[in-house]
Amino acid sequence: MSPGSIPIMQSPAGPHTVIDGRRYLYFVGTGYLGLQGHPELIRAACDAARQYGIGSANSRTAFGNLPPTLDVERQAAECFGFDEAFYFASGYVGNHILALHLEDRYDAVFVDEFSHYCVMEASRLTGRPVWKFRHADPEDLAAALRRHLKPGQRPWIASDGVFAARGDMAPLADYANVLADYSGAVMCIDDAHGLGVLGTGGRGTLEHTGLLADDGLVLANLEPDGADRPRRLFCGTLSKAFGGYGGIIPGTRGFIERLKSTSPYYRGASAPPAPAAAATARALQIVRTRPEMRARLWKNVGTVKAGLCRLGLETNDTPVPIVCLQIGDAENMQRIQRELMQQGIVIAYMAAYAGLGPEGALRIAVFATHTEEMIQQLLDTLQKLV
Amino acid sequence: MSPGSIPIMQSPAGPHTVIDGRRYLYFVGTGYLGLQGHPELIRAACDAARQYGIGSANSRTAFGNLPPTLDVERQAAECFGFDEAFYFASGYVGNHILALHLEDRYDAVFVDEFSHYCVMEASRLTGRPVWKFRHADPEDLAAALRRHLKPGQRPWIASDGVFAARGDMAPLADYANVLADYSGAVMCIDDAHGLGVLGTGGRGTLEHTGLLADDGLVLANLEPDGADRPRRLFCGTLSKAFGGYGGIIPGTRGFIERLKSTSPYYRGASAPPAPAAAATARALQIVRTRPEMRARLWKNVGTVKAGLCRLGLETNDTPVPIVCLQIGDAENMQRIQRELMQQGIVIAYMAAYAGLGPEGALRIAVFATHTEEMIQQLLDTLQKLV
Repeated sequence: MSPGSIPIMQSPAGPHTVIDGRRYLYFVGTGYLGLQGHPELIRAACDAARQYGIGSANSRTAFGNLPPTLDVERQAAECFGFDEAFYFASGYVGNHILALHLEDRYDAVFVDEFSHYCVMEASRLTGRPVWKFRHADPEDLAAALRRHLKPGQRPWIASDGVFAARGDMAPLADYANVLADYSGAVMCIDDAHGLGVLGTGGRGTLEHTGLLADDGLVLANLEPDGADRPRRLFCGTLSKAFGGYGGIIPGTRGFIERLKSTSPYYRGASAPPAPAAAATARALQIVRTRPEMRARLWKNVGTVKAGLCRLGLETNDTPVPIVCLQIGDAENMQRIQRELMQQGIVIAYMAAYAGLGPEGALRIAVFATHTEEMIQQLLDTLQKLV
Repeated sequence: MSPGSIPIMQSPAGPHTVIDGRRYLYFVGTGYLGLQGHPELIRAACDAARQYGIGSANSRTAFGNLPPTLDVERQAAECFGFDEAFYFASGYVGNHILALHLEDRYDAVFVDEFSHYCVMEASRLTGRPVWKFRHADPEDLAAALRRHLKPGQRPWIASDGVFAARGDMAPLADYANVLADYSGAVMCIDDAHGLGVLGTGGRGTLEHTGLLADDGLVLANLEPDGADRPRRLFCGTLSKAFGGYGGIIPGTRGFIERLKSTSPYYRGASAPPAPAAAATARALQIVRTRPEMRARLWKNVGTVKAGLCRLGLETNDTPVPIVCLQIGDAENMQRIQRELMQQGIVIAYMAAYAGLGPEGALRIAVFATHTEEMIQQLLDTLQKLV
């Protein structure tokens, strides 16, 4: 993996992407809504660079609030149906921020064994006992809670909403049922791959699962005077479906104000750069007001999964735009990836990632901007190779 | 701190900065070389947005390497005098990355009590015993090592190079002397406020202290077959003096290749956005090739500190462009800040920050782009208020 030998992307990520000088039909990465190279985002980025420069060079507690940063927070609050939001440097640290802010609210951490690296890192950061439960298995979660929690102790449950490589969803409704017996339990979901993609409003895996508003709970943020029933939190990134950059935590006004007033990520870290923030604010507005993009994505996901099924390849039937294929051993999958690429189509072979076995897997990413013809071309070419 | 009441910056940070509609003479933040709004950076950001979009939407282990990301790493390696560099989402997590990558190399952590939040967080993340030593006190570090390390155990020493609010430097040469007795010791410096500013080449606090190249040690990166003498590492941000965005770790080729091949921040986090990366690459080139900017900054720092000294205000005599003033109680300092602002000059009053006492402090940031007249205006106005 010396820098000389790695592939270099020479255009925005999109249904066609230029890599090392060649234009490929592209089914890789996380640009699910096809916004990374959207002209409105690019215009917003350039306008902001000219008006505000690259960054505020200042803490947000002093004079470091540039309008694009605040725009992202306003747009994200509206997009996700909350009062406020906290926008920060990278989605990677969303779980860190939540787990540290609420550290007096839990006694032990229970984490899906296939959770993303950042979820594992945040779990470790808590300094509490960390127990892994079997992937996407509410019964094993229940067993782990019974086994490891002492009476009166409060669990923190951590998981991805959508798993980046495997493309499956955490069974959040089942987790919620399990947690109903645990006073003060908190479920914290990293929804990096669900936000913008899942749910009628694009509010992610919790919305898709019907957990965003139950019993009048608009959500899910811990209030100091709150009841002790189970609560749900989520964080995510705006660099994937939204085509922008940076991490986001939406919440009620009180929760976000307390979070900002105490988090070192507000007081002591740079906000995302102005050009990226401006593009991200525009992206949030586009995603919120153009639900037809998500409908188109879901349709494409259905077409890809049905087509793979006809080829005898096993997939799930969710609207998640990630298809994980395990076809023979690593060598066979590398061959398929390589031969597809020779024919001008790129999918990813992932040798190692959270949740993958020793042989790795092929990963197909579906975009809203793929046409039916593009998808048919992928399916036809795959058919000859598998 | 509701979003309605916070000040909003409406221009690039610079010697003159527009806040809430008024143009101020500005001595706040971290834009020490005045690059945040530099036309060459803005042009680079816009060109990159148009050519590559906002971000690669992909892991760097797959197809997610955009040319601006690799440019930053090449330019940073050259700027800091190393073979290679790793460029990542935020300087806040540089210590996290290093401490996790090298976690089998130390048994206990010793950290300056006034270190930045991110250094404290990374220390906690290690899961090792964490011992604080008195701020900038090599004797207390030595005592802590004697008290807490068992025979054969290896210490990890963590500190800021320059302290963000206090503006003082860690006595790194003294720490190096203390560590000479400890086989396998590692000193890991967060040089967020030193990079670009200190040292003949702008390589930071280690260069300023003469520790970047002693005994032919070009540096400072742990090699698997390396001797067990004390080692030094540093990380930092490119969002302050450099006017760009993102975290940086320079190192030898072998070290950086191993770091990238194992770090979840390479495999599982978005690289900084393309517009910011392109601006940052340009900034690194500017800083490397125009040492006169740094000379000008040092001259301005000398002028400010000498002037404050004539007003009877205590400062240090280092080239660090941060002046921390404690003048009476919080109320008095807030008054000075407010009255200066009424007269069109902004400095910061920091109520709370790592290293500050309960009354907080005034903080003056000096830029290379301040003119002698601007500095004189600050000193004259301050004289009337203190």
